[in-house]
Amino acid sequence: MTARQYDGLNDGLNDGLNDDLNDDLNDVTNDVTATLRFFMEADRLKGVERKNFLSDGSRRENTAEHSWHLGIAAMIMAPFASEPVDIATAVCMALVHDIVEIDAGDTFAYSQSEDELASKEAREIAAADRLFGLLPAAAGERFRALWDEYERGDTPEARYVMAVDRMAPMLLNTAEGGSTWREFGITRDRVIARNGPHIEPALPAVWAVALAGLDAATAAGHVAAD
Amino acid sequence: MTARQYDGLNDGLNDGLNDDLNDDLNDVTNDVTATLRFFMEADRLKGVERKNFLSDGSRRENTAEHSWHLGIAAMIMAPFASEPVDIATAVCMALVHDIVEIDAGDTFAYSQSEDELASKEAREIAAADRLFGLLPAAAGERFRALWDEYERGDTPEARYVMAVDRMAPMLLNTAEGGSTWREFGITRDRVIARNGPHIEPALPAVWAVALAGLDAATAAGHVAAD
Repeated sequence: MTARQYDGLNDGLNDGLNDDLNDDLNDVTNDVTATLRFFMEADRLKGVERKNFLSDGSRRENTAEHSWHLGIAAMIMAPFASEPVDIATAVCMALVHDIVEIDAGDTFAYSQSEDELASKEAREIAAADRLFGLLPAAAGERFRALWDEYERGDTPEARYVMAVDRMAPMLLNTAEGGSTWREFGITRDRVIARNGPHIEPALPAVWAVALAGLDAATAAGHVAAD
Repeated sequence: MTARQYDGLNDGLNDGLNDDLNDDLNDVTNDVTATLRFFMEADRLKGVERKNFLSDGSRRENTAEHSWHLGIAAMIMAPFASEPVDIATAVCMALVHDIVEIDAGDTFAYSQSEDELASKEAREIAAADRLFGLLPAAAGERFRALWDEYERGDTPEARYVMAVDRMAPMLLNTAEGGSTWREFGITRDRVIARNGPHIEPALPAVWAVALAGLDAATAAGHVAAD
């Protein structure tokens, strides 16, 4: 939404509510406007491109649809989790945890750029400050708390969401023939080193299937052994 | 994921687990395999194209990223809802409610095709049977119940999710200049008739802003008045 279009919304809103203006209504109006501004800003996550492809290989995935897929994963993977998880918290965390990429961009899971990795945390904190700061205070604090919890990784839900966040691209890469692994020279050993420590402890039976798929992909020549 | 690749996963899995085979483990293995099969099938929702464009007008939206956006909306719009809603249920419903489009396709909100509208329900029920039937029983029943509840529209959560489901494309259309409305000759009156009955009762203050935006778009010539 352009600034001009926001002005149009705001002008129209003020005109439409002139008859009923009072402080309470102004508070609600301000919160609605802030919430919608965040909602429209969030739309930009659909334009953040990730490295991995969809399972049919047709194009690279964007972060918004990836986040939806993780929300679904959080709903269905709980029976295989190694510790009890609150599914509602995990689903919301999955939806929120990558919103900072609107400002900070996607950092490739296998990045070896020291500059990129060194600046990632600072860029993402600045993004969280700006983006979650658009929301009314209560919602902004909830989103920030979910994002902080995910980043800290110190709760069952954070470990569970991190596991499905690593599982998803590994399965997509396996399904479509390992394009991204070959494009960036990622070997089977590196796939295991990057993903195993997150997936195996949290979702051991899922890791067994993912690893079997990786071995089949290795045998098929879709990923180099080492 | 192709059948061949699934066979690879399954072969690898059976090889890897031969040492520990027993009935309990087979049950878990079957559930993991079924869950992952659904997860990979769900990936296809990213390829279902909707009619409306993203807010920057760069391309049409797909149903997976739309569903993510609704999940976010369900997290942040509750303070403006006209009746109390269980946010966790609403978020999960938002993520699940359009999965049937993998088989049934997206039906345009303003469709006037009698054939399309008449067949929509049957196509979507068949899709729900097949897709949710891929999941282990407990998860499949949960997804089906959420979808049924949304389709019935008879709970606060279903009305709330329907409201944000109508709000989202209305705001995106307004933001990017009404391309879809002009492409299909949708007038301001029809936008109100289609969306108002869902948004206004559930989210009245949000409807006021959306309507003001529509009026601004009408004044700017992005949508015809009637």
